[in-house]
Amino acid sequence: MRAAVLTEPGRIAVEDRPVPTPAAGDVLVEVTAVGVCGSDAHYYREGRIGDFVVEAPLVLGHEAAGRIVAVGAGVDGGRVGERVSIEPQRPDPSSAETLRGDYNLCPHMRFYATPPVDGALCDYVTIGSAFAHPVPDSVSDTAAALLEPTSVAVATLRKAGVGAGSSLLIAGAGPIGLMCAQVARAMGATRIVVSDPDDRRRGNAPRFGATEAIAPDAVREVDPVDAFVDASGAPPAIVDGMRRVRPAGRVVLVGMGPDTVALPLGVIQNRELVVTGVFRYANTWPAAIALAASGRIDLDGMVTGRFRLAETAQALDADRVPGSIKAVIDVAGDRG
Amino acid sequence: MRAAVLTEPGRIAVEDRPVPTPAAGDVLVEVTAVGVCGSDAHYYREGRIGDFVVEAPLVLGHEAAGRIVAVGAGVDGGRVGERVSIEPQRPDPSSAETLRGDYNLCPHMRFYATPPVDGALCDYVTIGSAFAHPVPDSVSDTAAALLEPTSVAVATLRKAGVGAGSSLLIAGAGPIGLMCAQVARAMGATRIVVSDPDDRRRGNAPRFGATEAIAPDAVREVDPVDAFVDASGAPPAIVDGMRRVRPAGRVVLVGMGPDTVALPLGVIQNRELVVTGVFRYANTWPAAIALAASGRIDLDGMVTGRFRLAETAQALDADRVPGSIKAVIDVAGDRG
Amino acid sequence: MRAAVLTEPGRIAVEDRPVPTPAAGDVLVEVTAVGVCGSDAHYYREGRIGDFVVEAPLVLGHEAAGRIVAVGAGVDGGRVGERVSIEPQRPDPSSAETLRGDYNLCPHMRFYATPPVDGALCDYVTIGSAFAHPVPDSVSDTAAALLEPTSVAVATLRKAGVGAGSSLLIAGAGPIGLMCAQVARAMGATRIVVSDPDDRRRGNAPRFGATEAIAPDAVREVDPVDAFVDASGAPPAIVDGMRRVRPAGRVVLVGMGPDTVALPLGVIQNRELVVTGVFRYANTWPAAIALAASGRIDLDGMVTGRFRLAETAQALDADRVPGSIKAVIDVAGDRG
Amino acid sequence: MRAAVLTEPGRIAVEDRPVPTPAAGDVLVEVTAVGVCGSDAHYYREGRIGDFVVEAPLVLGHEAAGRIVAVGAGVDGGRVGERVSIEPQRPDPSSAETLRGDYNLCPHMRFYATPPVDGALCDYVTIGSAFAHPVPDSVSDTAAALLEPTSVAVATLRKAGVGAGSSLLIAGAGPIGLMCAQVARAMGATRIVVSDPDDRRRGNAPRFGATEAIAPDAVREVDPVDAFVDASGAPPAIVDGMRRVRPAGRVVLVGMGPDTVALPLGVIQNRELVVTGVFRYANTWPAAIALAASGRIDLDGMVTGRFRLAETAQALDADRVPGSIKAVIDVAGDRG
Repeated sequence: MRAAVLTEPGRIAVEDRPVPTPAAGDVLVEVTAVGVCGSDAHYYREGRIGDFVVEAPLVLGHEAAGRIVAVGAGVDGGRVGERVSIEPQRPDPSSAETLRGDYNLCPHMRFYATPPVDGALCDYVTIGSAFAHPVPDSVSDTAAALLEPTSVAVATLRKAGVGAGSSLLIAGAGPIGLMCAQVARAMGATRIVVSDPDDRRRGNAPRFGATEAIAPDAVREVDPVDAFVDASGAPPAIVDGMRRVRPAGRVVLVGMGPDTVALPLGVIQNRELVVTGVFRYANTWPAAIALAASGRIDLDGMVTGRFRLAETAQALDADRVPGSIKAVIDVAGDRG
Repeated sequence: MRAAVLTEPGRIAVEDRPVPTPAAGDVLVEVTAVGVCGSDAHYYREGRIGDFVVEAPLVLGHEAAGRIVAVGAGVDGGRVGERVSIEPQRPDPSSAETLRGDYNLCPHMRFYATPPVDGALCDYVTIGSAFAHPVPDSVSDTAAALLEPTSVAVATLRKAGVGAGSSLLIAGAGPIGLMCAQVARAMGATRIVVSDPDDRRRGNAPRFGATEAIAPDAVREVDPVDAFVDASGAPPAIVDGMRRVRPAGRVVLVGMGPDTVALPLGVIQNRELVVTGVFRYANTWPAAIALAASGRIDLDGMVTGRFRLAETAQALDADRVPGSIKAVIDVAGDRG
Repeated sequence: MRAAVLTEPGRIAVEDRPVPTPAAGDVLVEVTAVGVCGSDAHYYREGRIGDFVVEAPLVLGHEAAGRIVAVGAGVDGGRVGERVSIEPQRPDPSSAETLRGDYNLCPHMRFYATPPVDGALCDYVTIGSAFAHPVPDSVSDTAAALLEPTSVAVATLRKAGVGAGSSLLIAGAGPIGLMCAQVARAMGATRIVVSDPDDRRRGNAPRFGATEAIAPDAVREVDPVDAFVDASGAPPAIVDGMRRVRPAGRVVLVGMGPDTVALPLGVIQNRELVVTGVFRYANTWPAAIALAASGRIDLDGMVTGRFRLAETAQALDADRVPGSIKAVIDVAGDRG
Repeated sequence: MRAAVLTEPGRIAVEDRPVPTPAAGDVLVEVTAVGVCGSDAHYYREGRIGDFVVEAPLVLGHEAAGRIVAVGAGVDGGRVGERVSIEPQRPDPSSAETLRGDYNLCPHMRFYATPPVDGALCDYVTIGSAFAHPVPDSVSDTAAALLEPTSVAVATLRKAGVGAGSSLLIAGAGPIGLMCAQVARAMGATRIVVSDPDDRRRGNAPRFGATEAIAPDAVREVDPVDAFVDASGAPPAIVDGMRRVRPAGRVVLVGMGPDTVALPLGVIQNRELVVTGVFRYANTWPAAIALAASGRIDLDGMVTGRFRLAETAQALDADRVPGSIKAVIDVAGDRG
């Protein structure tokens, strides 16, 4: 099978690799579509993210959809043929975190496209049966791939406590920020302010649920909100956003920023803000699928660039196009 | 001022009464619209609801909107002129329940149209300043009155834990059942099954968010749901509904039923269902206003009968018209 | 190895069986002590509990401790020799319930001593590695076995929301009621009222944390409590107990009662009580071990009868001795 | 009556002032005992805490007990004679925060000994009836005063999610750190590690519930804990403490530190820590009273210095005595 391999920073080679065999409990998925995430681009350009260093050739891609073509021992053979969205993680079922339902925090996690685990930019991948989520026909292959970033947003907004009539400030109009806006709207938020320094990115926000799209300078004028989501990773945005949260409100940090940030301790204390972070997701796919299948969110409309597997390198740089949101690689398109 | 007074079961008289004076902390509201609730009709017909017995002439009506025309001591005079929705309760600020945020459960509560406290079917009422909630112009007087049953639904669905992609079964397609369907949709529920034995009532459900409207017989075939809301008060509906809830799901009982119901203890235990009830609401108006103002729910569309204050008796019987949902009394209409 | 087998209702035979081999992910445990639970006695006498019918010879016992003597593939061999308390359940790691952290509600659960799965009244058993919890030397074999009912109490009191200064009513002074009293005290409850019709059982309560021990007749005089735990399964106790709970309080049903009970719907609604049940436990062993190891609860002191494996039948009837609390079978004692 | 007045930084004068008259809803309390808090000492020495500046003579003291000697309009006269612990806050009952149950976060709060509101270091004070909490005879006047810092600890440990078998790291062995250790033990925590750079302060910790008392250098060796409470306000302690928390654990910041602290964002995100602060307390007195009355915590044993009202200045400096924990002013002692 074909696999787009990161051989060294800045270089992708499409190689021929053996089709994997599904282990007990796994399914084999023929990949149809893979979304490009900022972390893929970061590995491509820098060869590392924090402590995770690419030390051997790595297949990128963890936003993936496909079709089940074989099953491992113990898996219902009737699943062959199912169109699925892949939840790209393999937690250890025996860890305390997994047993508590926080399997995303499992210390023994193996996650797609995180060194040394290969990702989905290839023709076939395996995943645990419970992590291959069937999708209805109303969800396109592209949308099925984008259920991964949707899941990040679902995890984020659950932690943000968003509900009917909530007000929300989101810093960052990138894919995660926009996804959070969409999911927040679907969960009943009625005031959704999105800030971004880039006016083309900001311009995308109203289409995806934002009730206001503002420049970072204007954040200080925002009326108090129930929750602040940082999807920027930028320390000034984090600090300014926190200051806009009402007493007992929530702050959820989903954007990747520096390891250490000077945070306004007095504000956290005096308002009893609840500050937390999001690390991937757990138990989000059913919600994400339901939102997409019912038309509450628009995933296909977030795609601003489509590529073939052979064009993986261009896809990884597509975020440099002004106004771009999300690139998707159509793996099935030119499969032999 | 005029007041529509229940003088004995089955008899309403429009009487002349003095305009009340707002006490310290209160506002005086000129009433514009009042919705008719099933409890109003019940007091009208039976003269009692459970332990609450109408022993003296009583003004009914607790779903009310109006305009502030005067304020009591300590209230900002700038509020005069505000269009408001009335939250018709006066909890004791010193009770343990109120201090915990459960002011609806305050044992010293005085509530509109609950003997011996008069309600809003008159020209002027007083209420605590914090319980007169300003509404924007995009919310009609009628909709402002119907924020009261909206609040019941908001309280119900918070307890039901409804969020993105939730599935919900609602028994009863009366005003509260339909309101719950609307609010559930606004909070992200994507499967909303409404059951009712009356096919005309059932027929209203899809317009208000139901994804399926079924007869009670069909409830046993419903796939497991995350939560069940009983808005019927009918014991068989309660029992059948509970049995459809998935493990660790929620059951919220909002419909008024008999004092005692035989419930399936084994199901509650073996699935660890969380069963609770709703008694009015606390801290719901801001959410209800935001949902109405943003167009996420349709309140004006629920009105199937409009009446003058002089027609209060007819309004109280309007629920007997097949297919009716909600009657509203336009108190301002023929004010002299 | 020896196994005490329920061959038909009322008859236990000690048979010779092969020592099991630990599968991948499992450990093999040499059993030291097994507590007798009411459900064991019920299977012994009646041959069934609800839908679970003993249709083939069954080894009873699910409150068990022992020592790891071998490990299956993938398990750290360094665990051999560990003294462990057994959490007697095998959930499916792929079920939605397990992934959410509610593994006790997994529909594919295999649980010790629940037909057709054998229990621990034998010399050797296997269990998933994560479900064999190491215990420190300060916890005796007997106490290690009794961490199972401790876990029921921990699960119950978490659901009851017990914390500093909580008040609690517990119906039933059997082993679970007394265990709940102990754990409630350890979690900060300061008023713990235990009711039981049997004055000898009641008499045990103060030793295990009860601040009052009363007859059922006296329950109606009890001041409102934050939570009610039913550990009796008796419908009148359930109803009387519920009525003593303050607004927004909790009711947790842990005692096995009839399938259907007439419950006071009006009380649940008007006070917004939160009613739920306990079905086994999840993620409780670490807490139970910590309570026992730190001396916050007394498990050895609950033992009122000690038996050999050959005396299993007597042990199963030991609950008929007036004032008895808990029988324990010393499996190691006469091992050849 | 006598009042110990801070007339300028570093100077306390005992002045004669008129006895206040209780307003409607208030009670008049004859003060018996007042604890000295670090904030009192800070105002005394610096004349300000953050934005709160002492610009006019101020009576300090907000940890107070006494006896009701008169009641305002609307308060049950039967309360005269009650021994009470004072919850020294006056929230606005109409604010959104108060109505939600977060009255400590009310933006219109008037709080004892916070400029320009006078505190309790005088013979008589008034407070809202619901904020004068009756205490049983088993709670001494001193202990009744110290229910205020107990309440801080109760609020802190509720937010920390402490329960049966919890493990906890507390930075700071001052009065709040020790109080947190005591309350944590009472709530079921079984591993309570307290760190402090001062070995005399550290030495007090085991007496109040700590299972380990360590120097800050040793914090990095602490096994992961369920929760970290900072009662030091020291940035290095905050950062080191956070790093010891397990995935999905809690961090509660109760110590007053600098306005801004560089926090490990990556740790918060990758472990999904929940970080929050404590600002006073709400709905804590009943729990604090119950803990004290039942002997679960020892308040009298925390007193290391006792003073007369005339010795207020010395009492405010008593924290400079090595090994001191808490100074209490016996206001009743030399009342004329």
